Amino acid sequence: MDRQLITLLTDFGLRDGFVGAMKGVIATLAPAARVVDISHEIEPQGVRRGGLVWAQATPYFPDGSIHVAVVDPGVGSRRKIIALRSKNSIFLAPDNGMVGYVLKRRQIRAAVEVRPKEHCLQPLSATFHGRDVFAPVAAKLAKGLPLQQLGPALESFQLETLPPVRRRRREGTVEDFGQVVDVDRFGNATTNIRPPSSGRFVAAEVGAHRFSTLRRSYASVRKGRPLVIVGSLGYVEIAVNQGSAAAALGLTPGSRVRATWRVA
Amino acid sequence: MDRQLITLLTDFGLRDGFVGAMKGVIATLAPAARVVDISHEIEPQGVRRGGLVWAQATPYFPDGSIHVAVVDPGVGSRRKIIALRSKNSIFLAPDNGMVGYVLKRRQIRAAVEVRPKEHCLQPLSATFHGRDVFAPVAAKLAKGLPLQQLGPALESFQLETLPPVRRRRREGTVEDFGQVVDVDRFGNATTNIRPPSSGRFVAAEVGAHRFSTLRRSYASVRKGRPLVIVGSLGYVEIAVNQGSAAAALGLTPGSRVRATWRVA
Amino acid sequence: MDRQLITLLTDFGLRDGFVGAMKGVIATLAPAARVVDISHEIEPQGVRRGGLVWAQATPYFPDGSIHVAVVDPGVGSRRKIIALRSKNSIFLAPDNGMVGYVLKRRQIRAAVEVRPKEHCLQPLSATFHGRDVFAPVAAKLAKGLPLQQLGPALESFQLETLPPVRRRRREGTVEDFGQVVDVDRFGNATTNIRPPSSGRFVAAEVGAHRFSTLRRSYASVRKGRPLVIVGSLGYVEIAVNQGSAAAALGLTPGSRVRATWRVA
Repeated sequence: MDRQLITLLTDFGLRDGFVGAMKGVIATLAPAARVVDISHEIEPQGVRRGGLVWAQATPYFPDGSIHVAVVDPGVGSRRKIIALRSKNSIFLAPDNGMVGYVLKRRQIRAAVEVRPKEHCLQPLSATFHGRDVFAPVAAKLAKGLPLQQLGPALESFQLETLPPVRRRRREGTVEDFGQVVDVDRFGNATTNIRPPSSGRFVAAEVGAHRFSTLRRSYASVRKGRPLVIVGSLGYVEIAVNQGSAAAALGLTPGSRVRATWRVA
Repeated sequence: MDRQLITLLTDFGLRDGFVGAMKGVIATLAPAARVVDISHEIEPQGVRRGGLVWAQATPYFPDGSIHVAVVDPGVGSRRKIIALRSKNSIFLAPDNGMVGYVLKRRQIRAAVEVRPKEHCLQPLSATFHGRDVFAPVAAKLAKGLPLQQLGPALESFQLETLPPVRRRRREGTVEDFGQVVDVDRFGNATTNIRPPSSGRFVAAEVGAHRFSTLRRSYASVRKGRPLVIVGSLGYVEIAVNQGSAAAALGLTPGSRVRATWRVA
Repeated sequence: MDRQLITLLTDFGLRDGFVGAMKGVIATLAPAARVVDISHEIEPQGVRRGGLVWAQATPYFPDGSIHVAVVDPGVGSRRKIIALRSKNSIFLAPDNGMVGYVLKRRQIRAAVEVRPKEHCLQPLSATFHGRDVFAPVAAKLAKGLPLQQLGPALESFQLETLPPVRRRRREGTVEDFGQVVDVDRFGNATTNIRPPSSGRFVAAEVGAHRFSTLRRSYASVRKGRPLVIVGSLGYVEIAVNQGSAAAALGLTPGSRVRATWRVA
């Protein structure tokens, strides 16, 4: 437990002192804990973006890590703060659905509502629970406080997920009607479509663009050319080699994508 | 002293190698020290912004921390570099007033002028004292060098503070004429007005907007609606629930705010 | 070897989960290693910018550091990943020339091509080698894996350098025809011109601007005025005191600069 790892993901940005204040609280209460930033540049109140970024990074951390997310449009309202334990990790977040991007219901071994009174900084502000609740609770978990002592067991909580893909099957073919769900720094557009377990790519259509080859790498087309690829998290992705697919093809979250696969 | 904590606040940004160079120097000279970033996204030469961000974060760090700020428009001029010790912490900064946002004069137990010659990297550049002076001095403090050995005791140094609030009292009422002093990432506008110790909020006026309720949380008004609240550092703040008060109400540092309180 | 230091430089930005995933992999495979960020805000595919930022920071890190750069337009293509050892440090990067900014050929003690198969995460993605190759290889080096075990010795690899300066000598004078190679956060424009070892500055010309004094510090001219100075890495730099030379003088990488020196 001694050098316990705490990851932080927030929409606080890096130009203010919010993240520094959280790290100060943690360093005070759990001096041996290690803090690793996942991102603080989630767009304000961006629950889905936060969830997707959390899903990109948290699976790669060691067992026993404590993952803290503060994207919290409801701060100071009656929204709950929840702590969930999976087989290997602890997740601490507002009850706004964000954990649904990193945990399925069946993976959750324990869930409690954090009752901040005993575990938070006093006086408790109504505007900065990152500093006053999330940081001290994470620190106490890092010091070994059992999850159950944070508050009562929780029956029900929100698990947001990606919008579903509509799948149409006909003779030997599967058609997936999905959408762009995220655009990364490079302008790569990730969709909610995963390849069927044993299907062969036939085509993808995005607006007026039609792709008939599923590429292996960005560099397999010429610089500046668009392509379709399966991204590093297993979803179909539209990209441009050394360029921005979002800019070149006018893609934003919600843009429709159709993928067709040949199946046995 | 062994795992001494050093915090860094600069206007160096994160797109160049300035912060990395500082961390390299510290890691070389004080391998056991821990370095925590407060912010490197202070606007260039933004002494007040730097001071306010410092004030948001430094109070939450453990006793014994060494807080280093390099927002230094006068680098290479005859401006001094100062090191101050409060009851619990050490502050290292250019003598440009910035420490006034985190320390009052009576809290200062010791003050010295850093004479870089013995403690800095050689050759000493005239353009990058973050690397050549602040980092090695912080590292030596972390290793236990007494403050007094950095240079001569200092009689006089600058302590900048927020512009004063003009307070007008009349029968049973206090009127505070203040201003916006900072806008954070979310567009929340912090003022220099603190509620009187035993006053009841009557109203706040900002441009054409009049607020007659002091809210407890952002979420206590509907999404997109403006509100007035006491922020997490104790100052009156103009906000919009899940939106930007700065954008919606046209607020920038300097915008005038009037708050009225009923007092006994 | 126990608290080995790994530095990271990428073009991944901080708004996605890429850097977090890399740090998770390192924390899993080399729990005692320390990770320090140099920058993740290199412009996408900006090999030269990445190299220059690397050169600003890596020389200041302690002996034994492992420096990892992932600016990798060729990810998933046949481009190699290389690991180089200098007297004091290890450098891990794509074979795109970037190491040329931090190492001269004669400083390289050993060079290998990283054969990812044994040392990378499985399944190996074709789009995110930062997570799947660079992070695990850096972690293994931090744990003491000898460079030679990463793959076969490498005869040939790319070393990109700054464009050369054309130097014209005539009686008692040296003229350097160079260019702006980088603009930093403050708008300071670094050139590729280094002062001759024993020359006295005569003049510098940038567009219609002529400078006849080489300044010692930004603050040696009035606020807002342009100046020429030798920057913290030893190159001639165009700056504006507390302002942006790039904006004021219209400078971008490639802008021509001529410097004249009197020599004995």
